[in-house]
Amino acid sequence: VPVISLTTDFGLQDGFVGVLKGVIWGICPAAHIADITHLVAPQNVMEGALTLWRAAPFFPAGSIHVAVVDPGVGTKRRPIAARLGSQLYVVPDNGLLTPLLEEAEKAGAPVEFVHLDKSQFWRPDVSHTFHGRDIFAPVAAHLANGVPLIEVGTPISNPVRLALSCPELIPGGWRAHVRMVDVFGNLATDLPAAQIPDLGAVSVRALGREIDGIVPSYGHRQPGALVALVDSENYVEVAVVNGSAAKVLGAKVGDVVEIIQK
Amino acid sequence: VPVISLTTDFGLQDGFVGVLKGVIWGICPAAHIADITHLVAPQNVMEGALTLWRAAPFFPAGSIHVAVVDPGVGTKRRPIAARLGSQLYVVPDNGLLTPLLEEAEKAGAPVEFVHLDKSQFWRPDVSHTFHGRDIFAPVAAHLANGVPLIEVGTPISNPVRLALSCPELIPGGWRAHVRMVDVFGNLATDLPAAQIPDLGAVSVRALGREIDGIVPSYGHRQPGALVALVDSENYVEVAVVNGSAAKVLGAKVGDVVEIIQK
Amino acid sequence: VPVISLTTDFGLQDGFVGVLKGVIWGICPAAHIADITHLVAPQNVMEGALTLWRAAPFFPAGSIHVAVVDPGVGTKRRPIAARLGSQLYVVPDNGLLTPLLEEAEKAGAPVEFVHLDKSQFWRPDVSHTFHGRDIFAPVAAHLANGVPLIEVGTPISNPVRLALSCPELIPGGWRAHVRMVDVFGNLATDLPAAQIPDLGAVSVRALGREIDGIVPSYGHRQPGALVALVDSENYVEVAVVNGSAAKVLGAKVGDVVEIIQK
Repeated sequence: VPVISLTTDFGLQDGFVGVLKGVIWGICPAAHIADITHLVAPQNVMEGALTLWRAAPFFPAGSIHVAVVDPGVGTKRRPIAARLGSQLYVVPDNGLLTPLLEEAEKAGAPVEFVHLDKSQFWRPDVSHTFHGRDIFAPVAAHLANGVPLIEVGTPISNPVRLALSCPELIPGGWRAHVRMVDVFGNLATDLPAAQIPDLGAVSVRALGREIDGIVPSYGHRQPGALVALVDSENYVEVAVVNGSAAKVLGAKVGDVVEIIQK
Repeated sequence: VPVISLTTDFGLQDGFVGVLKGVIWGICPAAHIADITHLVAPQNVMEGALTLWRAAPFFPAGSIHVAVVDPGVGTKRRPIAARLGSQLYVVPDNGLLTPLLEEAEKAGAPVEFVHLDKSQFWRPDVSHTFHGRDIFAPVAAHLANGVPLIEVGTPISNPVRLALSCPELIPGGWRAHVRMVDVFGNLATDLPAAQIPDLGAVSVRALGREIDGIVPSYGHRQPGALVALVDSENYVEVAVVNGSAAKVLGAKVGDVVEIIQK
Repeated sequence: VPVISLTTDFGLQDGFVGVLKGVIWGICPAAHIADITHLVAPQNVMEGALTLWRAAPFFPAGSIHVAVVDPGVGTKRRPIAARLGSQLYVVPDNGLLTPLLEEAEKAGAPVEFVHLDKSQFWRPDVSHTFHGRDIFAPVAAHLANGVPLIEVGTPISNPVRLALSCPELIPGGWRAHVRMVDVFGNLATDLPAAQIPDLGAVSVRALGREIDGIVPSYGHRQPGALVALVDSENYVEVAVVNGSAAKVLGAKVGDVVEIIQK
């Protein structure tokens, strides 16, 4: 059964997401379709890119991921599709795939991009404002039907890339950054836990507060305690047990978190 | 594979939508089910009607659309089903289908209505407050199984109709109205772009602001600019590039937008 | 077609729910997956338990329900699975199944619990913070593939139970409690309507207001009227017609509602 995922900033109120599914099932009736999220902040390509990067690896090999956060819709920005590792992606060419692309490159995994310039795989009338419906969803459905990537577009090698935040080495440890704030108010940083030799013997500093050591999970401290731990993607995270670190610390994406080995 | 869509004001918090899916799969295990929206403003039949009208045409022929915005549940308002063009609908009889019905009539497409009065296609115990679960979902599932429309009810010809807003001809152009405000704050009007002979040579007036010309898409102006364009359903829309026209103008459904040919 | 439902406090923003679906389809590609809700208040096990209890009975026999509201993730709290009546459940052992368990016990329906201690049915690397992804979703998918309950864990008989609120007998009637507040602001109580001999001849008192009689449905009073009625699960409910009783009364979960036979 082909699997298609959807990641957008369309929200859940207006019916746009339902339209994507209707279009997909009109072309590939067998597809399973999973929503990753439709609550990316409007036009926030970075947030969409990071959300897709966290979710896509857990889908079966051969899944097709449609992501549409598309401030450039209707301009000359290209619609593209890609194979990264064992999965396929259909997106506007604005950097939405950067974290997945960098990871595939590091891993030496297959990387292919095509410019979607074959209109026979689109809806007949393409609007200027809703390429999710008119280009991305139909192309994904044709890929789900088994059309090869190379047939839906022309190979390219220069997809747009975002500049991703990186942790910096500082004396005694790392200066990391808050990369995502999740619904619980947990603060995911850009520092892989594997960079830290001894998780128990660190001091974590975030927004003027200091946390002693990295605990295995939320339940190892009392409700309300500020803790550092390893998140489910194996990065350092700052959290409040049964509470919101974002609220308690007033933290936001980009804020500095320092991890010092003791 | 039969496709069923759901449009309601049930919200996403209480599990009501999951219940509809459980009921449907108990009767028609093969059905694909797409959410159009469950965030219609509570009891706002007009908003539900317009959201369904914008989304349903993009579903495959033969799809079955369940819409439940139902302030009259438990009173004498009829449960109904309809064939409009190539698609089927299952709804309370309160006007939810008016825009789709008027369009089908204009197009000379098939139009059939039945009063759902055959309780063998309902859940055994029908509550007074949740006909979505007890009548509409089961009937939709039976239709998805191939039961003909004429078997689930008795033909009627007088469904309830809403009064839809219409653009009015004024000297030099049109007085249109904001019909929907989407999640981006874009203002969809009731004026089809096809009514305007020259899109580039118009002046658009909305809430005291004047916009020069209709641009092909958001990306043709700078972020923050107030623009008029043709929306993805081919109606005139007022928007702010990468922003919210609803917020910038303080606009709401029903507000006047004048389009004057220069 | 196997059916899996999902009930969590993950929210809809971060992609966690999409990840569960990706993991499930990687193991059981045929499964239909329904969201019950992902908007349980963070870590509110009672709210999750009641939402699941209201929705699960409407799913087909043999459905598999995954519920993850899991403040104890990463501690010694057990992951468990259960058969209650004709359905299967996969949850953390924190009381999420209490209302369903008590109902199954009252009905003399089958009740079986297992401790999920067979890691061959989990993802290879289990995180400390996301057992929904690493344990519950994979186990549910294996059950959907037909693996027997007894193979995924070791039988136990002492699942954690929550203390559920109960209505109390008082002179002339009942002292009930608000158990859930739904998206419309309707107040569901813990009093089954079947406990009231004559629904028309009661007086309902809630937060200083008195309501005369229990009406069949919302539409039997004018918009704005405060009413008592029988909800779709056959419990006494307090509502405002086309409005929010929660807002009008300032009511919340746990508040007292007295029902006095006249």
